[in-house]
Amino acid sequence: MSTAVAPKGLEGIVATTSSICYIDGDAGVLSYRGIDIHELAERSTFEEVTYLLWFGHLPTAAQLTAFTAALAAARTLPAEVVDLLRSVPATAAPMQVLRTATSLLSLYDADEADCSHDSNVRKSYRLTSQIAMIVAMFDRIRKGKAIVEADPTLSHAANFLWMLNGEKPTETATRTFDIALILHADHELNASTFAARVIAATLADIHSAITGAIGALKGPLHGGANEATMRLLYAIDAASEDPVEHVRGMFAAKKKISGFGHRVYHTEDPRATHLRRMSEELSKSSGNMKWFTMSRQIELFVKQEKKLNANVDFYSASTYTLLGIDIDLFTPIFAVSRIAGWAAHVIEQHDDNRLIRPRADYVGPAYPTPYTPMEQRQG
Amino acid sequence: MSTAVAPKGLEGIVATTSSICYIDGDAGVLSYRGIDIHELAERSTFEEVTYLLWFGHLPTAAQLTAFTAALAAARTLPAEVVDLLRSVPATAAPMQVLRTATSLLSLYDADEADCSHDSNVRKSYRLTSQIAMIVAMFDRIRKGKAIVEADPTLSHAANFLWMLNGEKPTETATRTFDIALILHADHELNASTFAARVIAATLADIHSAITGAIGALKGPLHGGANEATMRLLYAIDAASEDPVEHVRGMFAAKKKISGFGHRVYHTEDPRATHLRRMSEELSKSSGNMKWFTMSRQIELFVKQEKKLNANVDFYSASTYTLLGIDIDLFTPIFAVSRIAGWAAHVIEQHDDNRLIRPRADYVGPAYPTPYTPMEQRQG
Repeated sequence: MSTAVAPKGLEGIVATTSSICYIDGDAGVLSYRGIDIHELAERSTFEEVTYLLWFGHLPTAAQLTAFTAALAAARTLPAEVVDLLRSVPATAAPMQVLRTATSLLSLYDADEADCSHDSNVRKSYRLTSQIAMIVAMFDRIRKGKAIVEADPTLSHAANFLWMLNGEKPTETATRTFDIALILHADHELNASTFAARVIAATLADIHSAITGAIGALKGPLHGGANEATMRLLYAIDAASEDPVEHVRGMFAAKKKISGFGHRVYHTEDPRATHLRRMSEELSKSSGNMKWFTMSRQIELFVKQEKKLNANVDFYSASTYTLLGIDIDLFTPIFAVSRIAGWAAHVIEQHDDNRLIRPRADYVGPAYPTPYTPMEQRQG
Repeated sequence: MSTAVAPKGLEGIVATTSSICYIDGDAGVLSYRGIDIHELAERSTFEEVTYLLWFGHLPTAAQLTAFTAALAAARTLPAEVVDLLRSVPATAAPMQVLRTATSLLSLYDADEADCSHDSNVRKSYRLTSQIAMIVAMFDRIRKGKAIVEADPTLSHAANFLWMLNGEKPTETATRTFDIALILHADHELNASTFAARVIAATLADIHSAITGAIGALKGPLHGGANEATMRLLYAIDAASEDPVEHVRGMFAAKKKISGFGHRVYHTEDPRATHLRRMSEELSKSSGNMKWFTMSRQIELFVKQEKKLNANVDFYSASTYTLLGIDIDLFTPIFAVSRIAGWAAHVIEQHDDNRLIRPRADYVGPAYPTPYTPMEQRQG
């Protein structure tokens, strides 16, 4: 059989065709269905972007109204899933809880085993609303606060903040969070989306694929990077250190810094542009410039020293912190957004499926190695 | 950026180096760490094979004793996981339950976030024992039967059958099941193992990776194939049809038949050889030749008509049925075995990691597609 050896981590290997997300890493371009992310960040909403990702075109007014209503109507959780959120330790990592709860959701989804296009779309509405609810609800429960019921009159972004905080969010907070959701909604074959497609390609159901994707997103090399960024900012602040000197020390100790560089982008990550601006605006409006100033100093130093650009994670750390969101919710919030893209990719995979099954280059003991009898073995 | 376009489904693409499993699809060779699967099926045990997969060499007597004891000692489940098994609907698909319970296990595993080699090995012992327990225990619970406590004096195979049936298994049943576990323990970068490695490569924890792998295995193109084979045998039997005529009719109707052909093997799947033999032996010893005879007729016809060989799934269907195992436990039993290989691959991935992040070939609307204002859109 003929095989071709791919670079490690499948870097630069085109694993599938897709009509969802176009990235030009050299030009710093990200687009959903061909529409530039800058236009979407400035003019669209998470609901509209999700419609675009799933259906391939922007919705008419009537389509968007129906779509928004369907998402809002899907804001229900099976009692068993709420029971799970109440039964797990309050100290559990929210990503563990989200992964488990998403898997459990499938047991109460009447469409579970049906991998048809229409069934996948129906489940995508539910998963999008339910993942946001699970994240907000578990945070309330672990803090001993009462669960906040979903408000069907609110947008996806506003409802999440409402269910998380128990207060109606300001317009600025809602719009900031909505843009963050838009920016994170899809990113082609990132590791979690690729994991979802590998799972879906066995014709496993969408809940299996999304559960796997949540597991992948949990990894520090993927969704965990903005948590690491914020922990760094907290550490520098707690020690009253100079940010540049601290990072200089990290580099001297051969340590890597999270939130910089990207496998695909060789110029500024277009999402970082918006998150930097939002971080600055929230800082100014709140009168707390600390995190933004510190971030900006680090960004300029890393650019100068290592020629590395800030990526989507670097300014999302300070942006989320300024929105009052706990650090261990950063990655779950990534999932609250990325479910839009994951669902689009699972739908696309099932619509034209082929099992994803690569080969390995075997470098172990030569074949055939004999089966040595027990008494002749050496430990 | 330079990219290379891979065949659909990454067919023939070498995605990583690995020293775990060597397959020669043209010669019909499968080996673990270089040792031929035929030698292992005839002379080894599941415990020994698992040791081989994890540590790279066959164990000495002392090593095997310690390994077997450690696996047996890991036969405990957190009470919360047992509660979950009791709380889910008895009608739930066992693979959904296994996926959810495996995810939940991580919340009660003290090593959860530690992805070091030693931690991964510790968790692999637990996962191997716990996955078997979950499958057996849920089957008891859903049937309204009392849970059977693990017996630390029994082998992995015998303990599973004991916990499933509440009777000490015969030597023949234990050895047959043990060989089935050996045969399914690893298969290089099959879809579930590849999913596990993609997830692990974000430096996500092994529970995340295995949860994703279980989801992938659930798909009918992967673990679900022997279920489909058995459903076909049942359907033919229920209708008192001639097996060959039934399959001829399926081919005329352009239907595919499960359990034949393989992405990698272009000759007989070496695992099929053993499963065919075991199916025949169990049939003779039980005096029930029906499923074997029917299977053999179908195998010869499909080989003659389509030049397709029976794969690992085809005779595992009748073998498991003759062991008295329910059809919807076939795929969970695959997981009971494959956890050995999944764990080996996650350990190997974390030991020398690089994020697995391929690219997609974008075939959607041209970039830049303008953001059309709402009033100008057409549905």
